[in-house]
Amino acid sequence: MSSSQPDPAPALKEFSTFETVLSVRPDDIDMNRHVHNSKYLDYVLAARFDQMERCYRMPMEAFLERGFSWFVKSTFIEHKRPLHLGDTLAVRTRVEEIHVRGVKVAFEIAKVDSRKSSALGWFEYVMVHADTGRPAIIPEDIIEAYSV
Amino acid sequence: MSSSQPDPAPALKEFSTFETVLSVRPDDIDMNRHVHNSKYLDYVLAARFDQMERCYRMPMEAFLERGFSWFVKSTFIEHKRPLHLGDTLAVRTRVEEIHVRGVKVAFEIAKVDSRKSSALGWFEYVMVHADTGRPAIIPEDIIEAYSV
Amino acid sequence: MSSSQPDPAPALKEFSTFETVLSVRPDDIDMNRHVHNSKYLDYVLAARFDQMERCYRMPMEAFLERGFSWFVKSTFIEHKRPLHLGDTLAVRTRVEEIHVRGVKVAFEIAKVDSRKSSALGWFEYVMVHADTGRPAIIPEDIIEAYSV
Amino acid sequence: MSSSQPDPAPALKEFSTFETVLSVRPDDIDMNRHVHNSKYLDYVLAARFDQMERCYRMPMEAFLERGFSWFVKSTFIEHKRPLHLGDTLAVRTRVEEIHVRGVKVAFEIAKVDSRKSSALGWFEYVMVHADTGRPAIIPEDIIEAYSV
Repeated sequence: MSSSQPDPAPALKEFSTFETVLSVRPDDIDMNRHVHNSKYLDYVLAARFDQMERCYRMPMEAFLERGFSWFVKSTFIEHKRPLHLGDTLAVRTRVEEIHVRGVKVAFEIAKVDSRKSSALGWFEYVMVHADTGRPAIIPEDIIEAYSV
Repeated sequence: MSSSQPDPAPALKEFSTFETVLSVRPDDIDMNRHVHNSKYLDYVLAARFDQMERCYRMPMEAFLERGFSWFVKSTFIEHKRPLHLGDTLAVRTRVEEIHVRGVKVAFEIAKVDSRKSSALGWFEYVMVHADTGRPAIIPEDIIEAYSV
Repeated sequence: MSSSQPDPAPALKEFSTFETVLSVRPDDIDMNRHVHNSKYLDYVLAARFDQMERCYRMPMEAFLERGFSWFVKSTFIEHKRPLHLGDTLAVRTRVEEIHVRGVKVAFEIAKVDSRKSSALGWFEYVMVHADTGRPAIIPEDIIEAYSV
Repeated sequence: MSSSQPDPAPALKEFSTFETVLSVRPDDIDMNRHVHNSKYLDYVLAARFDQMERCYRMPMEAFLERGFSWFVKSTFIEHKRPLHLGDTLAVRTRVEEIHVRGVKVAFEIAKVDSRKSSALGWFEYVMVHADTGRPAIIPEDIIEAYSV
């Protein structure tokens, strides 16, 4: 599981990888009879929301209560094997980098049955003030919560 | 018109009610910060696909292999309480009527935590020839499989 | 264009029918290679938002600024002919009933090319206070705006 | 990695840029009250389908009739400014590279009113045999059709 470019930085090993298991829903299937390409991004989003609460102990609601939200700044995804109706998938994510105003999260989606990789990539998120959408500086306690 | 009204017909008791548990995905949430109204129909679809395989032992794939598919003919849904981010829901469905060319399936969506009803209604499905989309007569063995 | 039950009430003729033309998007297509059933509800929603602004001169933003929103209370839809990739559709809607706390809106979706009906039905909406989601009494000026 | 960086390669100028105008649909809006991140990929898909027919004179149906389809191999997207309810957007795409088995298409999404950029990025598509999903070699006449 890696960003698209080789990155030998040892800092990457500081952060934990977490996993969320999801099932393909029939409305995720498109005319090609596999999971529609944009739904993979929604699977990663669902995994992050689950992990924010369960693994980082800081659910999205906690951000919203403090007036913060996360916007997607950029995304890269590479498709390896299509997911199909009935498939169960594991979404593994890991914080790769923490910046003053954002984080980079790498992900891999694997089929649970075959353990084969379906897709991998990364998201860059920026923290924003929820009311204005303007960038915010990530508070120290949030950086700590994500540094596991 | 709806399963929401009392219906003393004894025939209803002939068919079993099955349940599928699902989780709200973040991409299901709309600008009102609850689950988008049309997603409830997708939850019922997901529950039916699960139950076709697990409870009726006749997954959608079995229909497609025989050249059949199911189209939605009509739907009624009544919303009771909105589902929100983080909610887990139980979708209960039951065959209400089996006709020559279709079935009527009643559903109820309940919140797992509070056990309160979120929505109820029904779907009328027609069996079609998958290649042409034209109505088909439901084969006897399929009627039997659904008569549990 | 009618609700599912015959309704001879002359009051129905008091309200105008408005039309919005939309195009099927590829992500609306499902495994049956026609428009996914729940997307029809999204087409009606898109048409109502367009018509609220263009025809009733009261866009959704005007409701939100006054602290109101509309929730879906119930929906009925009957499918006549499937929409496919490349289709252009006309969504015609008309207020059928205005109540103290809600409105009933009938709709018909037709294919623009063939002029044939694809689906029809109705939505019941309730006005709510946007911050609490609790039902609101529709202000008199809004009733007037919708009584065209 | 991205079309967002200046690229003086003269080859890029060989291919035409085409534009498709779309409207934001209310069901595209998420809990942050702007267009949901994964919907931007669907807008690009809709633009490509439109342009395949209108600009390249080779609609998706023509590929399917010949037993071909296009799968997404990888995607990069960078978000500049969020799209909101009521926004009209222009999706501009351009073939960047044509390979033996796939094409790379760069895109930019701009707001029509302000002419400001909302997002940009690229898609790599591979041609597949529709029945098996296995990679295909792009026929010469298709390469020619796309070399405008």
